[in-house]
Amino acid sequence: MPRQKIVIYPGSFDPPTNGHLDLIQRASEVFAHVVVAVLRNESKTALFTVEERMEMLAEATKDLENVSIDSFSGLLVDYAREREGRMILRGIRAISDYEYELQMALMNRHLNPELETLFMPAAEQYSYLSSRLVKEVNRLGGDISKLVPPNVARRLADKSS
Amino acid sequence: MPRQKIVIYPGSFDPPTNGHLDLIQRASEVFAHVVVAVLRNESKTALFTVEERMEMLAEATKDLENVSIDSFSGLLVDYAREREGRMILRGIRAISDYEYELQMALMNRHLNPELETLFMPAAEQYSYLSSRLVKEVNRLGGDISKLVPPNVARRLADKSS
Amino acid sequence: MPRQKIVIYPGSFDPPTNGHLDLIQRASEVFAHVVVAVLRNESKTALFTVEERMEMLAEATKDLENVSIDSFSGLLVDYAREREGRMILRGIRAISDYEYELQMALMNRHLNPELETLFMPAAEQYSYLSSRLVKEVNRLGGDISKLVPPNVARRLADKSS
Amino acid sequence: MPRQKIVIYPGSFDPPTNGHLDLIQRASEVFAHVVVAVLRNESKTALFTVEERMEMLAEATKDLENVSIDSFSGLLVDYAREREGRMILRGIRAISDYEYELQMALMNRHLNPELETLFMPAAEQYSYLSSRLVKEVNRLGGDISKLVPPNVARRLADKSS
Amino acid sequence: MPRQKIVIYPGSFDPPTNGHLDLIQRASEVFAHVVVAVLRNESKTALFTVEERMEMLAEATKDLENVSIDSFSGLLVDYAREREGRMILRGIRAISDYEYELQMALMNRHLNPELETLFMPAAEQYSYLSSRLVKEVNRLGGDISKLVPPNVARRLADKSS
Amino acid sequence: MPRQKIVIYPGSFDPPTNGHLDLIQRASEVFAHVVVAVLRNESKTALFTVEERMEMLAEATKDLENVSIDSFSGLLVDYAREREGRMILRGIRAISDYEYELQMALMNRHLNPELETLFMPAAEQYSYLSSRLVKEVNRLGGDISKLVPPNVARRLADKSS
Repeated sequence: MPRQKIVIYPGSFDPPTNGHLDLIQRASEVFAHVVVAVLRNESKTALFTVEERMEMLAEATKDLENVSIDSFSGLLVDYAREREGRMILRGIRAISDYEYELQMALMNRHLNPELETLFMPAAEQYSYLSSRLVKEVNRLGGDISKLVPPNVARRLADKSS
Repeated sequence: MPRQKIVIYPGSFDPPTNGHLDLIQRASEVFAHVVVAVLRNESKTALFTVEERMEMLAEATKDLENVSIDSFSGLLVDYAREREGRMILRGIRAISDYEYELQMALMNRHLNPELETLFMPAAEQYSYLSSRLVKEVNRLGGDISKLVPPNVARRLADKSS
Repeated sequence: MPRQKIVIYPGSFDPPTNGHLDLIQRASEVFAHVVVAVLRNESKTALFTVEERMEMLAEATKDLENVSIDSFSGLLVDYAREREGRMILRGIRAISDYEYELQMALMNRHLNPELETLFMPAAEQYSYLSSRLVKEVNRLGGDISKLVPPNVARRLADKSS
Repeated sequence: MPRQKIVIYPGSFDPPTNGHLDLIQRASEVFAHVVVAVLRNESKTALFTVEERMEMLAEATKDLENVSIDSFSGLLVDYAREREGRMILRGIRAISDYEYELQMALMNRHLNPELETLFMPAAEQYSYLSSRLVKEVNRLGGDISKLVPPNVARRLADKSS
Repeated sequence: MPRQKIVIYPGSFDPPTNGHLDLIQRASEVFAHVVVAVLRNESKTALFTVEERMEMLAEATKDLENVSIDSFSGLLVDYAREREGRMILRGIRAISDYEYELQMALMNRHLNPELETLFMPAAEQYSYLSSRLVKEVNRLGGDISKLVPPNVARRLADKSS
Repeated sequence: MPRQKIVIYPGSFDPPTNGHLDLIQRASEVFAHVVVAVLRNESKTALFTVEERMEMLAEATKDLENVSIDSFSGLLVDYAREREGRMILRGIRAISDYEYELQMALMNRHLNPELETLFMPAAEQYSYLSSRLVKEVNRLGGDISKLVPPNVARRLADKSS
């Protein structure tokens, strides 16, 4: 009965925030193995390369032994099949998140009925946090040191200097 | 590293619907063990006793070997601690569900920071289904045979005759 | 090809408000015949009897020749079948309305796949208006003369004196 | 009393999905005549030309005798006036749909108080379906054969080859 | 130009929570005078009397010199007129809050066009907190000491013993 | 105790609508001084220059003596600090507005805990109105004379001719 070897946590992580890392840490406590999977999306312009994002995630999760970092392109259902994963994990902050995530979850179940999406609510202190907003605040000179891990803050500082 | 021995799926189940059973079946595919926990809520008037509800759930899940049926009273966090469970599972249909469930999940994390609530979206064909609505339709003479398992339909027929 | 002879507009109308009457008037402009159907709901305590509500509706719509007033008990799908109606009309104000109405519409389509529910948005000036709130404001001595038709205002005054 | 000769169902239909076609079929059952009106929107980049979309819609609705296909540019209220239509039909899936559609419906009533927008809820099995998502899944190599009619699937295959 | 002498913060406060007190404290920083007004609602069964609630609020706000505690019955618009207040303050946590509060704000503007309702978002750490949930957790033996001020915790302990 | 000298009402105002002006007028009745602050956002393509927008706002508010027009770039929290303002005012129409505004309000409180955001509900007759929609209707030849002040209507006519 070797169920759910892994749970896959997909996303853009451009860059990873404290909200993402809180979710990864909490997921690592209750799931056997968490694969953080960075989406290679050529049609979206990103601040960091996929490789930079994987490095930042690897640095920030190095103490969590059952977390690994990966990347994927194409359909999430194809990636999950390849990794033999049957659970997708997504964090939810607001209602608008929920609607979009629900649509994706139902489409993914249509494409692969064996794949389940689980939603984990964001911690309340990160309910307003998003990669997009972090980049915006950083670009305008605001202090993002409490919103991202130190290694991400350093790289953001490099980008803006 | 024996993580998440069980996931607890709490609820009133007055009565269990096909929506509940779909969720239990899907959860049993991805989690090691699913405990369906019927809430003993004295302040709410129910159609079925907790014992009847547990019987209906046991009958309808008898082929799922890693599902067990239980009941609890008091705080869910206390019950979870007693069962050594760290994951709560809740099905989500609509936005209003989500808001209520989010409030409960955050309160439960406040009461026990080690307890995580995971939301699983209802299958789209059950998105309009609730125990309350099943009882209402049944009371008014509507056909509920596609909305609940056969054993529940029989008991509902007994109640209304 | 005699399609949709009637559209059924069901509700409690306890009492009818200017929001209800605006919707009836607008519906009467685009549908061949509008049947306003007052629900006989024994389990809900009402301020006005079903007969009083039908009288108030009849008075307030007496100039709309293609509107008639009726009442029903039991399931809406059974009433619609009996009236040979295939369209249900419901007004929508807020998001929470929408979620509840969507659930009812999908359940009714399950019970009778030939029955369609159409939603018509409330006029913006009535977006905050409900029978419940009218009764509350009236009970506390507020002026409801712009919120309900004159005949309803008179009856509300009688009730509170 | 020649009311509502036609109901207008406007949209982009880039491409038409099974959700659109389900709505058209259901609307054709309860309305005298359904005009599916493809919006010519120069500012939006589309996968299919308006003519291709009209062809796909015509093919997929050829058995529905009271459905016709048209296109329009400019304001919907102007098109409706020209067609002597007083009812707009829009399908609704999620809450975010509803908010946007409500805004458009109220603006259209402002521009022409005689024009009513009616919302019809999407069938639950299509609640996650959108033209945008179909194109995305197709582009990434996913199977869209259950999401669109066969003639649309063929054309999508042509586009991606 | 003696504008907005006071802002009125109405509510049930049965009992006051840390969420209420955070809002009062923040409001006292930006408004000249904050009147916390406990609603006397005979139709709702309360745990604490209005007098007890006023005492708890007075104790918990005794260091805020520009905050005063009052009670009212009847319509809020009548109370505001009597107090010569033109601003109502309401805290908002979730979307469902917002919908209800919006309805009340628009009704109150209808009843008195000079009265404005201002919404202040709850601090994120109190986004799941409500008087109802505090009472429920307390009744079931949970620890509410971080959810309410100490004087309220003591009184809740007295009630449950 | 010279509290809240000013309330800042920031926005794009491209162009100002009757909804904006209703909010400014109502705010000027209850706050000592209202600063309307046009955001200089280089990354967004606008129809009117910031200077044109400031002129339109100044013309339309010239009879409100306690309203002034300004512009800012960078972070709103930095601008507020510079102006010694502690209250931000934002109008709210729909739920989707609310979610976005809540995110911004919480982020701004994170960046400056002394800054409070207050939400004022839009008047119901402007609930569907936005600058974006006004521009769209105007571009397509619709009549926007009841949606914006006369001076804005004239400038929109100039732009489209």
